[in-house]
Amino acid sequence: MNYPAILEQIHRDIQPYLGTGRVADYIPELAKIPADRFGMAVVTATGDVHRIGDADERFSVQSISKLFACTLAFQLIDDELWSRVGREPSGTAFNSLVQLETEQGKPRNPFINAGALVVTDVLCRRFVSAETALVEFMRRLTGERTVDYDLRVAQSELANAHRNRAMAHFIASFGNLEMPAEVVVDAYCRQCAISMSCVELARAALFLCNGGVVPATGERILDSSSTKRLSALMLTCGTYDAAGDFVFRVGLPAKSGVGGGIVAVLPGEMAVCVWSPGLDSNGNSLAGTLALEWLTTHTGQSIF
Amino acid sequence: MNYPAILEQIHRDIQPYLGTGRVADYIPELAKIPADRFGMAVVTATGDVHRIGDADERFSVQSISKLFACTLAFQLIDDELWSRVGREPSGTAFNSLVQLETEQGKPRNPFINAGALVVTDVLCRRFVSAETALVEFMRRLTGERTVDYDLRVAQSELANAHRNRAMAHFIASFGNLEMPAEVVVDAYCRQCAISMSCVELARAALFLCNGGVVPATGERILDSSSTKRLSALMLTCGTYDAAGDFVFRVGLPAKSGVGGGIVAVLPGEMAVCVWSPGLDSNGNSLAGTLALEWLTTHTGQSIF
Amino acid sequence: MNYPAILEQIHRDIQPYLGTGRVADYIPELAKIPADRFGMAVVTATGDVHRIGDADERFSVQSISKLFACTLAFQLIDDELWSRVGREPSGTAFNSLVQLETEQGKPRNPFINAGALVVTDVLCRRFVSAETALVEFMRRLTGERTVDYDLRVAQSELANAHRNRAMAHFIASFGNLEMPAEVVVDAYCRQCAISMSCVELARAALFLCNGGVVPATGERILDSSSTKRLSALMLTCGTYDAAGDFVFRVGLPAKSGVGGGIVAVLPGEMAVCVWSPGLDSNGNSLAGTLALEWLTTHTGQSIF
Amino acid sequence: MNYPAILEQIHRDIQPYLGTGRVADYIPELAKIPADRFGMAVVTATGDVHRIGDADERFSVQSISKLFACTLAFQLIDDELWSRVGREPSGTAFNSLVQLETEQGKPRNPFINAGALVVTDVLCRRFVSAETALVEFMRRLTGERTVDYDLRVAQSELANAHRNRAMAHFIASFGNLEMPAEVVVDAYCRQCAISMSCVELARAALFLCNGGVVPATGERILDSSSTKRLSALMLTCGTYDAAGDFVFRVGLPAKSGVGGGIVAVLPGEMAVCVWSPGLDSNGNSLAGTLALEWLTTHTGQSIF
Repeated sequence: MNYPAILEQIHRDIQPYLGTGRVADYIPELAKIPADRFGMAVVTATGDVHRIGDADERFSVQSISKLFACTLAFQLIDDELWSRVGREPSGTAFNSLVQLETEQGKPRNPFINAGALVVTDVLCRRFVSAETALVEFMRRLTGERTVDYDLRVAQSELANAHRNRAMAHFIASFGNLEMPAEVVVDAYCRQCAISMSCVELARAALFLCNGGVVPATGERILDSSSTKRLSALMLTCGTYDAAGDFVFRVGLPAKSGVGGGIVAVLPGEMAVCVWSPGLDSNGNSLAGTLALEWLTTHTGQSIF
Repeated sequence: MNYPAILEQIHRDIQPYLGTGRVADYIPELAKIPADRFGMAVVTATGDVHRIGDADERFSVQSISKLFACTLAFQLIDDELWSRVGREPSGTAFNSLVQLETEQGKPRNPFINAGALVVTDVLCRRFVSAETALVEFMRRLTGERTVDYDLRVAQSELANAHRNRAMAHFIASFGNLEMPAEVVVDAYCRQCAISMSCVELARAALFLCNGGVVPATGERILDSSSTKRLSALMLTCGTYDAAGDFVFRVGLPAKSGVGGGIVAVLPGEMAVCVWSPGLDSNGNSLAGTLALEWLTTHTGQSIF
Repeated sequence: MNYPAILEQIHRDIQPYLGTGRVADYIPELAKIPADRFGMAVVTATGDVHRIGDADERFSVQSISKLFACTLAFQLIDDELWSRVGREPSGTAFNSLVQLETEQGKPRNPFINAGALVVTDVLCRRFVSAETALVEFMRRLTGERTVDYDLRVAQSELANAHRNRAMAHFIASFGNLEMPAEVVVDAYCRQCAISMSCVELARAALFLCNGGVVPATGERILDSSSTKRLSALMLTCGTYDAAGDFVFRVGLPAKSGVGGGIVAVLPGEMAVCVWSPGLDSNGNSLAGTLALEWLTTHTGQSIF
Repeated sequence: MNYPAILEQIHRDIQPYLGTGRVADYIPELAKIPADRFGMAVVTATGDVHRIGDADERFSVQSISKLFACTLAFQLIDDELWSRVGREPSGTAFNSLVQLETEQGKPRNPFINAGALVVTDVLCRRFVSAETALVEFMRRLTGERTVDYDLRVAQSELANAHRNRAMAHFIASFGNLEMPAEVVVDAYCRQCAISMSCVELARAALFLCNGGVVPATGERILDSSSTKRLSALMLTCGTYDAAGDFVFRVGLPAKSGVGGGIVAVLPGEMAVCVWSPGLDSNGNSLAGTLALEWLTTHTGQSIF
């Protein structure tokens, strides 16, 4: 596959779309990022790295952290996780409380905010500092010792975390939180504030294309079956309530964040990360989704 | 009207029902009250007091405090209140978050928990201590200087306030709270913990039957039109999501609390308070509702 | 009470509001009525009739028919009715199917469309022609032999009855319809198409202010207690999902229709009907609601 | 891949599960099928057929017909279809009307009942008899001239179609139906009553593993890209509101029916159909889902 040529063509074709979409503005720190940035990196299972645009610039991973927090929690408590959080698409906005009420405090899946709070609760219970544990995990997956969370972004999130606090207290009211709601929200906001580049995120996701093993170090993260199941979960729940449309157009398991990043994997072949801050109405990167759609079209590769 | 005879008959007939229903147990302090207590007091507009059973024993007013907090807020900011809280029956459980999400953080009415939190926010903004202001107000309405809130009940509520905290943060996320969520929830829990007897509560509500003026002191609480409108609000929204059934059976504007108390008024004639801790499935006192239904049947009096 | 003077003042003051609001247009026949029509009639329990404007012009009663159909069904099967339909405000739009799904086919109350279909089903089961039975009932209540339904309006309704058909089949799917859905919808559309004037409707409602007896003929329609309970139901459920606001502003039990009519009663005193086709966003006559609000303000009379 | 050995092992292991689950009983004709039947057929892209148990016995395809009706509609009007029906998982029960109300008559996807009615409306508009067109299509896909619908099942469905009628009229009320609701429901019930065997259904689905071309005849059904997108849709929406769990466990695009059948495909490799009438709480075949989960475990094949 001629990835360099394909990435270059995508980079050319995407130009008119840069700056469209809406940069997340509910967190002031995120609102400062220029909407026209664009980066993309493909890392193959064999270790080749292909990059274009701002692929080495770090951005706020936001909800993409949910994928790695969930991996860590899955490592720790395995299928016990599913007694506290479901595996179904939510069908409603990512920060909705309605479903939580109907379903008695058990979030639909670990990739909506409510579910991610439960996942963070699992981490808070087992680590002195959940956010440090996740940062360490990201460093191990990427081999980059400088990966960290951005304190200003974390504080900006904490100052605007009314909805997440509401959700945490609500989950607690159903008895589905083991640690204090404030502790969980604090750790959650720090996790979301982790900064990474496209190349780093694609590298971090590579174990998902490689049966659960990090190719560069040989470290096993998950067994083969759990790895497939995590990919399945990304597919049905990874892109907010636009999962159906995303799978229809892109055809790859993926996890997006309101920072404008999207990580996707093609099992056995490659991991890809794209970044562009302008979001569509569902909260997914507008240019990023388009770039991934073109990638599967140009390469003829998807899981279908 | 021969109130003494009517109260005595009600007291006799209600015996088989005492101890039925379910005492509120989500607050440990409330769960300790024996289910078979029963008291009832009628105070006429002319000042006569009729009582039966445990009519002088104080109990936790709980949501009945919403009626008086709303009166106080209405005094303070008049119709401005309705820009922040609605006047419609909720149609769903009193502590639901669903409606709040659909209606963008504007609670349906001041007598469901969400609306009461907004009302408390109004008081917190204007008084150094909202709960002290309300306690003072209750003392003025009743002439009883010993009315106060029960600190153990308040602490018990605070320790179990996950749902109210969730609601306060949720309302804050829509910009409909002026004070910090924690401050509002704290004041709210203290208000709910006010202890009063049937006689005291009936006296406190008497201004509603008297065009807005406290008969004993001549103090004007609300103008005549506002008084009628507050009664209208009690009628459609005062008994959780059983308002329709309550009006159908009892036919009086009323406000109930999970402590087992219900205050009702017949404009121009009398205020009544009944107390019995066993609740029906809607959270209203089971024997209390029955006693009020019998009162309107026996006296032939209702607003219809 | 000087009703003539009060009606004249209302008529003067209402002029600027005529033509505002939106005439119901989902039924083409209704859309033809000029928006600036206005009539009002007060009929006292003693038989005096006061009228102003177009008080003798017939208009389509629409949902006001629900009040009389419910009275008839209540006569027939008494409290058995409440096993098939509830007594609570709906809290959602009058033609919503959502609540019906949550509550397993038992409509919230007889004054929303779903509940009215169940009421009509009761009538269809017991009369050869439900709409003829209702027309006969209206003639008996008013003494007017020419009261009838308008066939063109009925046909116009039937041709646009998708939502009502959906509702009827949906109720049937829960086993809460005894007659075929198509039969019930047909009868329902004819009922709604009954034409009556303000004076006739006020006369028809007079039994509700007179303990259940038609003053003119002495015919008992309902016993005293059932009459009060029907008024209670009007109060909490009679004006679509604006019942709270309506009671707050007007303070009388009432039933409105999208034809622009509103019937209201003050027990022991009078029945009133107002008509003006322009509707507010809740489907209640805009000028009509205002006129009733002024009536209770000017007379100082309401149930509170 | 040694499919014969794998099928035999599945057949042995599944025995304890046969007869568990609940046979669909809302249609009397379906309730007659013994719960312990089990058949399974794998047809490879190269044309090999592997079968076990009752793989040649015909059963009622029910909702599996939605897959082929959607294919046909997609052939006819291509992406225009998505203006009338969405591509998102519903997140609620397959026959819910709630979502339809919130989303103004546009069903979430073509694989829930509401969406399938819109798809059938597309076919009814373009064919004299939509059900005959679909039967013909199934004959072309399978090469079996005797495939047909079962009239008794169709009549049984029609006699119990209240919910579907409600849904069709509801969609019509939003203007999203071109043909009369009754016509659409009639055709829909006949479609669902098509009888086919596991071998026939696996053959019919084979074009989905072969880039849109029927291997046996070379007939192109859809272009390559549309084929992938249809598979994507099966994955996110094909198994009622358990899609997330199904993908997590099985990892294949699939479409199930309450007759107990499930069709699944592994692009490039094979189509499989399993049949066992006992359903789990989501309406998917209990033993069938298990058999498919074991198939992907034993073969190590899934799309992830």
